Order: sequence, then structure tokens, then C-alpha cells
Amino acid sequence: MNKTDLKIYPMGGVAEIGSNITIFEFENEILAIDYGILFPYEDFFDINYLIVDTQSLKKSEKPITLFITHGHEDHIGAVVHFLQEFPRTKLYAPRLATELIKAKIFKAGFSFEIETYTEDLEVSFDEYTLRPVHVTHSIPDTFGVILHKQNELAFLFISDFKYDLNPCFEKPFNTDKIKQYFTKAKRSIAFLDSTNILNPDKTLSENDILEDLEKIIARKQRTFITLFASNIYRVHNLLLLAKKHQRKVCFIGRSLHFYLESAHNVGILNKEDFPIIELDAIENYTDPNLMFIVTGSQGEHLGATKRISNGDQKHITLSEKDIFVFSSKAIPGNEKKIYRLINKLSDSNVEVITSRDMQVHASGHPGQKDLAELLKEIQPTDLIPIHGETYFLRKHIDFAAKNFPQIKTHFITNFDLIMFKNGEMKIIDNAPTDPIIIHGNNIPIEREKISERRKLACNGLIVVTINHKSKNINITTNGLPNEFARSLPDLRELAHYTVFQEFKNRDYDYVTEKVRIKTRNFANGKLGYKPITIVSMV
Amino acid sequence: MNKTDLKIYPMGGVAEIGSNITIFEFENEILAIDYGILFPYEDFFDINYLIVDTQSLKKSEKPITLFITHGHEDHIGAVVHFLQEFPRTKLYAPRLATELIKAKIFKAGFSFEIETYTEDLEVSFDEYTLRPVHVTHSIPDTFGVILHKQNELAFLFISDFKYDLNPCFEKPFNTDKIKQYFTKAKRSIAFLDSTNILNPDKTLSENDILEDLEKIIARKQRTFITLFASNIYRVHNLLLLAKKHQRKVCFIGRSLHFYLESAHNVGILNKEDFPIIELDAIENYTDPNLMFIVTGSQGEHLGATKRISNGDQKHITLSEKDIFVFSSKAIPGNEKKIYRLINKLSDSNVEVITSRDMQVHASGHPGQKDLAELLKEIQPTDLIPIHGETYFLRKHIDFAAKNFPQIKTHFITNFDLIMFKNGEMKIIDNAPTDPIIIHGNNIPIEREKISERRKLACNGLIVVTINHKSKNINITTNGLPNEFARSLPDLRELAHYTVFQEFKNRDYDYVTEKVRIKTRNFANGKLGYKPITIVSMV
Repeated sequence: MNKTDLKIYPMGGVAEIGSNITIFEFENEILAIDYGILFPYEDFFDINYLIVDTQSLKKSEKPITLFITHGHEDHIGAVVHFLQEFPRTKLYAPRLATELIKAKIFKAGFSFEIETYTEDLEVSFDEYTLRPVHVTHSIPDTFGVILHKQNELAFLFISDFKYDLNPCFEKPFNTDKIKQYFTKAKRSIAFLDSTNILNPDKTLSENDILEDLEKIIARKQRTFITLFASNIYRVHNLLLLAKKHQRKVCFIGRSLHFYLESAHNVGILNKEDFPIIELDAIENYTDPNLMFIVTGSQGEHLGATKRISNGDQKHITLSEKDIFVFSSKAIPGNEKKIYRLINKLSDSNVEVITSRDMQVHASGHPGQKDLAELLKEIQPTDLIPIHGETYFLRKHIDFAAKNFPQIKTHFITNFDLIMFKNGEMKIIDNAPTDPIIIHGNNIPIEREKISERRKLACNGLIVVTINHKSKNINITTNGLPNEFARSLPDLRELAHYTVFQEFKNRDYDYVTEKVRIKTRNFANGKLGYKPITIVSMV
Repeated sequence: MNKTDLKIYPMGGVAEIGSNITIFEFENEILAIDYGILFPYEDFFDINYLIVDTQSLKKSEKPITLFITHGHEDHIGAVVHFLQEFPRTKLYAPRLATELIKAKIFKAGFSFEIETYTEDLEVSFDEYTLRPVHVTHSIPDTFGVILHKQNELAFLFISDFKYDLNPCFEKPFNTDKIKQYFTKAKRSIAFLDSTNILNPDKTLSENDILEDLEKIIARKQRTFITLFASNIYRVHNLLLLAKKHQRKVCFIGRSLHFYLESAHNVGILNKEDFPIIELDAIENYTDPNLMFIVTGSQGEHLGATKRISNGDQKHITLSEKDIFVFSSKAIPGNEKKIYRLINKLSDSNVEVITSRDMQVHASGHPGQKDLAELLKEIQPTDLIPIHGETYFLRKHIDFAAKNFPQIKTHFITNFDLIMFKNGEMKIIDNAPTDPIIIHGNNIPIEREKISERRKLACNGLIVVTINHKSKNINITTNGLPNEFARSLPDLRELAHYTVFQEFKNRDYDYVTEKVRIKTRNFANGKLGYKPITIVSMV
């Protein structure tokens, strides 16, 4: 085999949003950046999530480093699966992500050493040096990765960021470090976030939304605010505003408590500084001084917002005196669920405020102006759009081609292979591998089983049981209209005739298949569709 | 019972978008305006649609008139059900809607007389006179309803419109007629469209999008344009532009052919005037002069856009030379499906143009500026928002309260009752009736059966069949992971022990229930969820 300096290939997150993992395969070792989950497609029913199949990494037998950039679920959600597959992994994570991953490992019932890193870290991979670079995003402690071979070849990999030079509670995006280690290289290849490429403007800073949030909080009406639980700086700002306006804050929803606790544990936010009250400890639940920070901004089935809007949350009854703020935006696919939620809230004549009404949400991803500002500063020779669906990647390329014609752009999707050999770069198209679907106790379930489930859901079920000796026949249905019950005596007669007269001398398999087909056709005549039919002769 | 002059109540379309029907119940007769379908919720699986339960109308035994305002499915989609329930209905419809309804009646295998009306119509209902008023919308031949008792009390009911004074191919919105018969009344109550109330601006006219559509069509690259098939004026404009630029037009998708044929039949558009070519008659499928108008803008499973994007459309292979225009917008709930479509198109590097990129779509519903212009002209004493989800109705009320404080606003939802007695108006809150879910051969299916289907889809199925005599046990599964198959011998043994040892002297019902519970618990231990389990002993 020929000597290859370096292979780079995304296994997830490029041509989709979710399940981020990108591989840098060196001569003697493998670096994997992130290993997150993909949230289920809406037509996959109740499954947990999808993960990238990493079996192919086993072939090389090189030592593996898993490097986590930040604590979002689409970057850490599948780490436990990774550690179980590759128990000798060297795992790096920033302090907040470390805390979040620890909880996952604990829940899975094992232990694992995590190297918690800060921006000072330097790690070598063959002749390359990896340096994390502090970037701004919607969760604290987010890093990009610079990987460089002296001043010859350098990579910048930032899958999630916004270009915020005036953020709250943290340092600005660290452009200088990128200029120092990346821009200077003869060839500098940037992998950048495409999530928000459809936005032609600049993404708001958390600072930009303080004014409108304060206007609402100053109104002293009982207020509910829902947001992404991991948006800890937003929570911090809300707590500061609550304190300033002498309001008591109550958190509702498990994930908010979890992230708050995690942020407290690593010293990002000291919850003791704030007037936080437990739900059960509130004396007067209609007190206009109360401010609730709640989960479920995406209309999640088990989210607090859904419970509250349905009147199912203990202690909370909404009225026209309340304000409900969506300090969030819809993740594509959740629009209808969120509309249903807002309609439910409107039933109680609550005042609903969304980012259509006031500036109450700031995205964590760069708009076109952020990307333009960053590209001007760091001047890469090459740009590879990542973290986005295919359409976003194309738009990112169009945007760069139009505004930065001197930058070479490359369109790649999951599993495409970028090879460097003797300083030459080559891209090889590869077909993607199907993700693994995880349900229940972390059990993989095959795609064709999901199809079976869909057929059950769309067509209902008929079970026909036949005792060949006693000639007894049982018919059970599930998910079929009541009207069909009236046809069951006819169906039983049909089955009886088929088994005990028409095909009485044929074997079990032959007869049950005949009964199955006749049952489906019989039902189709009545219903206009063919239920899944199981025939069992015992 | 006290004498009541008039009762008005919406049975559908108010606090939801879809299944429009509003009842005006006079002393001696009933007027129903429209009877449409509600498109299924995304988690209802493959059902056809939902319709409003009209059983309550049977109580009064008054003669019924069904008055259709326009031909959209959420206004005519359930007319056949209505006529089957109330075969003595007097049915009015404008010419295009008549044509569309005729096809439905024909398909259902019966015949029915439709009174096709134009704007000149005058019909009496007790002391009230009904006059249709021409309004502009996204389908030709759309009317509002004026209903008035001399100059004493008047209603204006326009569930779908935009306020277009410079439309294509039709007269402007007829404000004058409203001023003449509605505004003059002592009390004038307007029921108006809330669909687009979140838009603070004016809705575009079809005329406003011609410029950008022409820019695209002038480019002479093979072009695909997807839109709502019923938007006949848009199709007409596209045909004119194609003719002007010497392009050949091919329609793909059944519903486009159907609406084109219907419009042709009633004289709205003469298809003979245009260079239309059948798909199979095309000589060179990559001819850059070709322009395809195609169905499936919402990502519909059977739409032409989905087939084309997947490479499943005969004769069509996409390339980077093609343009694909979404002359449409997402109906809430379809966003993810449409994104998936656009991503598929981006796989082939087709140039995708949506209304984010150019002005290629105009809505059919009024923005706030349209409503403001109309309200200024017609000056109602009262405003009742309709055609919108609860949140939209609230926003419509807020908008009116802020801009037209002199107008009384009333918030009502489906089944709320507006009563007029001796000139006094009273609103009574009523709980809504559940809609009827229609699946397959127009068979109603109960809501709890949909829940059963959901449970099957989320948990899979185990069927255990037991022959009590031969002690033979069969176990079949559906929708469960392959890994579970390895546990089946253990499960069979468990069932065997339960039936033939542990509970061998108990009756069938008792034993099968024990086996069912044990099976579910056994599976839960392996999978982390409990499949639907059917146990049959024969």
C-alpha cells in the first residue's frame, strides 16, 4: 500500500444535522472529533436516537483519540457507545462536557478516565499538533480544533460557533490563536458550520437580547420562559435579571435542573447567588413575582411546557394574566408541535411572546455576515462546509464562491475521503453507511423492523389462530375500526372453509398462507386496505 | 322555548386550519357555509382525513342549504359525506367549485344537482338576503358571503381572501358591493380570515411575482416549477411566460392535470392556447427549452417532486444544469419533508430557488396591511376572527384592538354559539365535538384505534399461540429487533411452564392473561419496552 500522510473523513454531521463525528486518520493513530446522536426522524416512532456505525474504524487497529468540542447531544450523545466499542480510547473533553459525559458513563454503569482540557492544551498526532481554540456558541466551553504540521499544512475545524466578539460571561471568539497557528500555514483548510447559512445577516449575541428580556421581566406578571436547557449563559442572564427585579425563579423540568447542576459543579454559574425556589416550596403559585424557567420549547411530549399548556403540571393553572416566552426557535420538523403548544397556551389567553414579537432568542450558529467577518480575518486557502444538510452545504459554497472567490471550496458529504499525500489533496466520493437505530435498552433495531412497525400503524392487525384438531378458530384484531367487528363471523367462516374444506389435505404452511391471503383480501374489501395478518395453526 | 331570531356557530375552521363549516340557523332553515376536510395530523399515520361530525344538525329537521365559497379541499373536501348524510340539501357552488365537486360525486357513484352561482345571486333565508361577493384568493372563483336583514343587521363572512385590487385575470376584490349591502347596516359583523395574521405586511399579488418568474424562465435552462395545483392563475401566468419565451410546458402529476382540465372545462383557461406537451411525447428530455410544472411542493409521498428528486420519475434525470423552483410555501407541519426534498435535489446539484431567494410565491391570505385596508373601507361595527388556529385568532383580535379600537372584537372557537334575539347579540361558550377520522374506503375509525396503532408502532408485536391439547406453542413477532429472536426459546419455555405447570388447572382466560403479562415483562427485561402481546389459546 502506498504511503498516505493523512486521511480525513466525516462519518456524520455533513449532509445532515446531528450525529457529528469526523475522523482524522494519521499514519499511526486515529483522531475522532465528537460522537453525537441524530435525533429520530418523526416517522421512526418512539425510538431513542440514531448513531453512526463505527465498525469500519476497527480495521486499522490504530490507537484512537476521541476529542470532544462541546457538550451538545449531537456531539457527545453517543460517547458511551463509542467507549463500549473502543474501550482503549483516549478521551478529551472540556470541563462542562466532561461533567455531562460523566453522568452518561455513570448511568451506563461503568467508569472511564476523561482528560479535561482547557485552551492551553497541545497534543501531537504524528507530525501534527492539535490546539483547541475558544469559540462562542450557545453552550459554554465550546472549542474549535486547529491541527497543523508546522507552517506547511493546517486545518481549522469548527462545527458549531457564532462569531461573537462581545459575548456574556466568556472571552470573545479567539481569532488571534487561529491567525497564529492556522493562517500562517502555506495551505490552510477551514471546516466551518453551515447550520445558519440561510440567514443573510449576523447572528445576535446573547447581549443583544437582554433589553427585550428585561422589558418582559420588569413587567411583574407571572412569567414562564422556555429555552434549550443547555443554554447556560442565557439562564445566567435570566437569573441576573430576576435578581435585579426582585423576582423568584423556579425551574421546571429535569434537563434544566441537570444542566444547572452541571454548570454549578464546574464553576460556570454559582446557583447559590440567585433567588431560586423549588416548585413545592412556593407559597403562592399565582404570585406575579414568580418567574418559571421551563423545559419543552420544542413541544416535547414530556416537556414542562406541554404539561403546563395542557393543565397537567401540578400547582400551575394558566390565566390571561400570565406571560409565556419562547426564548428559542423551532428545530426543523418541530414546527407543528410548537404551533400546537402555542395554540394550547392561547386557549388560556396567556400572552405568548416568541422571537417574532421581540428579540428573545439568539442562535448559536453563524449567519452569512459572521462567516464573512471570520473568513476575512483568517483567510483560509480552502473551505469545506460542514454541519448542515446538503442544501446548506451547497448554499455555503455558493456564498463563499460569490464573496471569497480566492478561497477554494470543496463539497463533501459523510464518508467522502479527503486524502493528503506528498502535499497533494484528493477527494474521493464514498457512499455513506446507514446509521444504527437505537431503541429501549440501547438495543439496535433494524431498518426493516421500523418498516414493519409502520405497516402495523398504517393498516392495523388481524391475528387468526386455528386449532387443527378441535377446528376451533380465534380471531383477534388490533387498531381496526369498530365497524369491522361486524364482519368477523363471516371472516371466521371463510377461514374455516379454507382450512377444513377447500385445502383440508394440504400441509400447515400451505393452508396458513392461503388463510392469510384470503383474510387480507377479505379485509381489503371491507376497509380499503390490508391489515398485517398473522395466521397461526397449532 | 323562547323565540330566537338567528344562531350562528362555526363547526370547523375556527381554532384550527381546515375542515371549514359554519352554520347560520334561521327560524325555519339552516345555511351551512362550506364543508371541507382537515388534513391528518402527522402522527395519525396514513389516514385519509378528518371531517366534522354533523349529526347534531339532524335534530332540527329544518331544510338545509350548503353554500360553497370556493373550491379548496378544506372547503369542499367533505361535501360528498354531507350529501350522503343530508340527501335533501340544496347545494350552491361557484362554477369552478361545481366542476370539482361534480368529480367527487361521480367518483362516489351517485348524482346530485348543484346550483352553480355567479356574483349576481340573491337568495332569501327567512328575512335575510344572501349575496355572494367576489373576493381575490389563490384559486379562481372565490366568494365571500353578505347576509343582511335590510339595513338593520348584516354579516360579512370571508374565510379565505387577500385584498388584491390589481389581480391577474379577474376583477379586483369587490369592496363596493360590501359597502352597499353590509356597511350601511346599523350593526355590521365581519367574520374575517386569520391565516396570515402573523405577517405584518401586505400580501403579494400574483402580479408582483411575475418579474422574478420571468427572470427564471428567460434563462433557458431546463426548469421545474412546483406549486399548489389549484393555483390556476399562477399556472396561467407560467403558461403565458412560457409562450413568450418559446418554451414547451409539460405537466407532471395527477392533480395538476385535474385542475387544468377543470379550469379549461369552465372556461377559466383555454389550454389549447399554449405550447403544452405530454411527458411521453417529448423527444429530447434534456432540452433546455423544457419547462415542467409539477405537483408535490409539500413533499407529498406520491408527489411528482418527490419522484423526480429520488430519480424515480420516468424520463427525468436531474443534473447541475437544471433549475428547480418552489413556487409555494410550507404548510405548517410539512417543513421537514420539504427540507428533505430540497436536500435530495441538492444531491444532484440542481439550482434550487425558493421564496427565500426570489419573489416566486404569493400567499392567498391577508397580511395585517390587507386587513387594515379592508377594515378602513368597510367599517364593521364588530369583528370575529375565523379561519385560523387559536393563536392566530388571538393575534387577529390584538391587531384589531390596537388599530381599530372602535370595532368590537369577539373571540370564538368551534361550536361556540352566537345568538341574536330582538337585536341583542349573545355568545355562549360550547365544548367542541371530536372530528370523525376517515380511513380507507371512507370508513370512520375511532380515536382509540389510532392509539392502538401508535402502540403497535412504538413497541412492536408478540403473538403467542397455544394448543391446549397438543401443548404446542407458536410465537411470532413483528417489528422487533433481530436480537430478540435469540430469546424466543426462553420465552417459549416460560409460556409452557406458565400454562402447563404453574396454572395448569385454571381456566383459559386466566392462563392467557398470565402468559400475556409474563411475556410483556420478559420482553421488557430484554428490550426496555413492552411489545403489544396477543395470546390465543385454542
